[in-house]
Amino acid sequence: MAVDDTQRHQLDLQTTLDEVIGLLNKKEVINNLVQRSESHRHDLVQSLVEKQQLTALNRKLKQLHPADIAFVLEGLPIDQRFLIWDQLDSAERAAVFLELNDSVIKSLLGKMSQEEIVNVASYIESNQLAELITYLPEDIVLDVLNAIDKKSRSEVQSSLSFPKDSVGSLMDFDMVSVRASYDIGNTLETLRKNKMFPEKSDQLFVVSDSGLFEGVLSIKDLILNDADISVADVMIKGAFVLHTDDSLKDAASAFERYDLITVPVINLHGQLVGSLNVDRIVEYLEEHSQKELLSHVGLSEEEDLYAPVWKSAQNRWIWLGLNLCTAFIASRVIGMFEETIAQLVALAALLPIIASIGGNTGNQTVALMVRGLAMNQITKTNFKRFFMKEMSISLINGLVWGFVVSLFALIIYGNFDLALVMMGSMILTLLIAAFSGVVIPVTLDRFGRDPVMGSSVLLTAVIDCMGFFVFLGMAAMYLT
Amino acid sequence: MAVDDTQRHQLDLQTTLDEVIGLLNKKEVINNLVQRSESHRHDLVQSLVEKQQLTALNRKLKQLHPADIAFVLEGLPIDQRFLIWDQLDSAERAAVFLELNDSVIKSLLGKMSQEEIVNVASYIESNQLAELITYLPEDIVLDVLNAIDKKSRSEVQSSLSFPKDSVGSLMDFDMVSVRASYDIGNTLETLRKNKMFPEKSDQLFVVSDSGLFEGVLSIKDLILNDADISVADVMIKGAFVLHTDDSLKDAASAFERYDLITVPVINLHGQLVGSLNVDRIVEYLEEHSQKELLSHVGLSEEEDLYAPVWKSAQNRWIWLGLNLCTAFIASRVIGMFEETIAQLVALAALLPIIASIGGNTGNQTVALMVRGLAMNQITKTNFKRFFMKEMSISLINGLVWGFVVSLFALIIYGNFDLALVMMGSMILTLLIAAFSGVVIPVTLDRFGRDPVMGSSVLLTAVIDCMGFFVFLGMAAMYLT
Repeated sequence: MAVDDTQRHQLDLQTTLDEVIGLLNKKEVINNLVQRSESHRHDLVQSLVEKQQLTALNRKLKQLHPADIAFVLEGLPIDQRFLIWDQLDSAERAAVFLELNDSVIKSLLGKMSQEEIVNVASYIESNQLAELITYLPEDIVLDVLNAIDKKSRSEVQSSLSFPKDSVGSLMDFDMVSVRASYDIGNTLETLRKNKMFPEKSDQLFVVSDSGLFEGVLSIKDLILNDADISVADVMIKGAFVLHTDDSLKDAASAFERYDLITVPVINLHGQLVGSLNVDRIVEYLEEHSQKELLSHVGLSEEEDLYAPVWKSAQNRWIWLGLNLCTAFIASRVIGMFEETIAQLVALAALLPIIASIGGNTGNQTVALMVRGLAMNQITKTNFKRFFMKEMSISLINGLVWGFVVSLFALIIYGNFDLALVMMGSMILTLLIAAFSGVVIPVTLDRFGRDPVMGSSVLLTAVIDCMGFFVFLGMAAMYLT
Repeated sequence: MAVDDTQRHQLDLQTTLDEVIGLLNKKEVINNLVQRSESHRHDLVQSLVEKQQLTALNRKLKQLHPADIAFVLEGLPIDQRFLIWDQLDSAERAAVFLELNDSVIKSLLGKMSQEEIVNVASYIESNQLAELITYLPEDIVLDVLNAIDKKSRSEVQSSLSFPKDSVGSLMDFDMVSVRASYDIGNTLETLRKNKMFPEKSDQLFVVSDSGLFEGVLSIKDLILNDADISVADVMIKGAFVLHTDDSLKDAASAFERYDLITVPVINLHGQLVGSLNVDRIVEYLEEHSQKELLSHVGLSEEEDLYAPVWKSAQNRWIWLGLNLCTAFIASRVIGMFEETIAQLVALAALLPIIASIGGNTGNQTVALMVRGLAMNQITKTNFKRFFMKEMSISLINGLVWGFVVSLFALIIYGNFDLALVMMGSMILTLLIAAFSGVVIPVTLDRFGRDPVMGSSVLLTAVIDCMGFFVFLGMAAMYLT
């Protein structure tokens, strides 16, 4: 990366974002004023004012870390993004690209010429270039691959060949390895001579003369041991390694459990092929938790805060459409009992209580199951136990809240039978909610689907339909 | 930590958990068999079998990393946890404690004697001891503080004095600092002589002779530079620092943006007081994302998968109670229109459609706002823009889905006026949903509340009540 990475870190970015927005808006306001004044010196004044604002903007941008420029770009409307983007050279653009989210990358790539894209790509490391390439049209990909050297090209291709969310797809190819046959003294000498030393790492990888992975040498041991001690003697032999096909989710949880900084990645032949660093894991965790927040409500991470209204509206349609289908079914369930409702209109007013409490209970169970699944704590041996526990809790809650609800019905409508039906259907609905809350996420997980994404639609569908059916069905039998 | 930390890391913990459960269950099964056989050699056989099983269990435990023992404990029912806990010595218990979640720590502390607790505490580093101490009763705290040395005691007390979720509360006190006045050669010499070198770090902190923070020296520069170069010349002066009162949330986002490994923490006087390492940030992020998942449905992180049923049921009551209140209000809104419903029962069947689509739209907006707030991307200057965008999307969706819904009503009930009312109230409800979806989380955030926790209850309340009111109100005016 051509950009100095150690300077200009800042904790408070909101002020920076507001400053840049201020500069951009001032520019627009002045432009409008100048245009309205219709003076003869129109063009001259405008270009002078523009120049002044651009200088101020440029000065501000030069002070920012690439990650912070990315933050500002994500916080700006699409047209204003290009004003900033135009101020950056290819090296800066490359550094900023790595920090941007998908939708903003796409919006910027759409406006760049083929030549500009190839230029920027030449500044990006191979494993990260692989990520970027997936957004590019076929013909530009070939140009990009031709513009980089042979080693990088083969690395990009191998990165692309690993499945998404595998360790191989995120690992770095550049790493510093030392020979097991050396001693500490000539290891240090070689490192100094080649000016090679890993950044953001706490260990070096040790390989045999034939390139097989042997172990890791902590930098602490490298520095504190005497020069004549052999690397093989101080290295850690049974060190934790990852394989290219391990899942990133498991890797992230290992980083968390074992407080890891850098982990060697080896292939099936035991050869060292790359390294996975904690900074990539931190990024992965952040992205993942954002995705989860959005996928709860059926939104993809793609959704750009500044995407055009029409596109954003469509982005929400699949989810709304799905929910509408389940709402239609629930509506038809109620429709089946129209005669009963016509005889006792109070039933209509009590329906939302059934749906609300059922939905809440079910969603609580789903959240606990999703967490348990994410943490690998739900196994075949203890599944039955969780299941029984959730059912028991629902029974207790059905009795407690069923009583409260039937009291409400009794006070409002003074109908003892109605209160009893309310209590009975409340208990049944909560049992259905707990049952679905356990079974739905586990089933989705078993079939390799993300339980967060689908559980809540399915759950709502089941609970609304079954809850209404139970309540109105009991009412039809006992009340009318 | 007395436990060897580099060995026995493993990626797949589910198998391990099942193995331990298997061992514990086998023990129980055999005990039951032996008890039922009523043989004369009852006691002898039982103790022999028990011994055999304990040996197997012990062998398994010895192979596990403390973090993995913690994982196993969290995955076991409460009574079985103590069987494992009894096999660990104080040093192992200390290492495991640091990895356990709050509720399991509490369950274990409850069964330990005062002496055992003090013993375990003596193995724990001061900044982490501060965390543990918050769970202990007053009288044990004093014993624990008396059992550790003076330096640790003052560190524990200073850790406790920082607010929760501040950098100070999580920072490490142990760090390796070097003098700016030294050169690389005697810095290396001093480090070797004192056998001091930071673990899991990529830099050393540089202080002046009076202890003021001056900058950081990357380990790379320490190793690659010549011995006679002065530390002051190669250190990074404007390095990123954190202050004890910075928020952990901001710190975590800085770690992510700048790919940081270790950051020096300084106090208001510019003195170096500690360091914050990326492994603590990874833990913080993991905990935070779990909390978020659960707080969506009103559950605290406290909820132990194996907590007693009665306690778990109560844990869910506040949320259910809150939701019940809003459901009662929604129910009364419908109650106001009982006459209208009696005249046109179809209205009752259409109610869940209004609630479902309104709730979904609102929750999508809430999720986007919560993400925007978490990422600091919603500022005063661009708030209006987001607001207008969400309102426009809702208008579009209201027209699109309102049309679909009114078509449904027309087909099922063949009532053109009913379809029109459905369409009109759908548009209005979606506008209300977008309005509340923007305003509720922003207001909660402005008042320092967690927008994730409260938004969804408030949103459901507003949308259900207003949606029902709009729909039934329009129906009362135009249809009956």
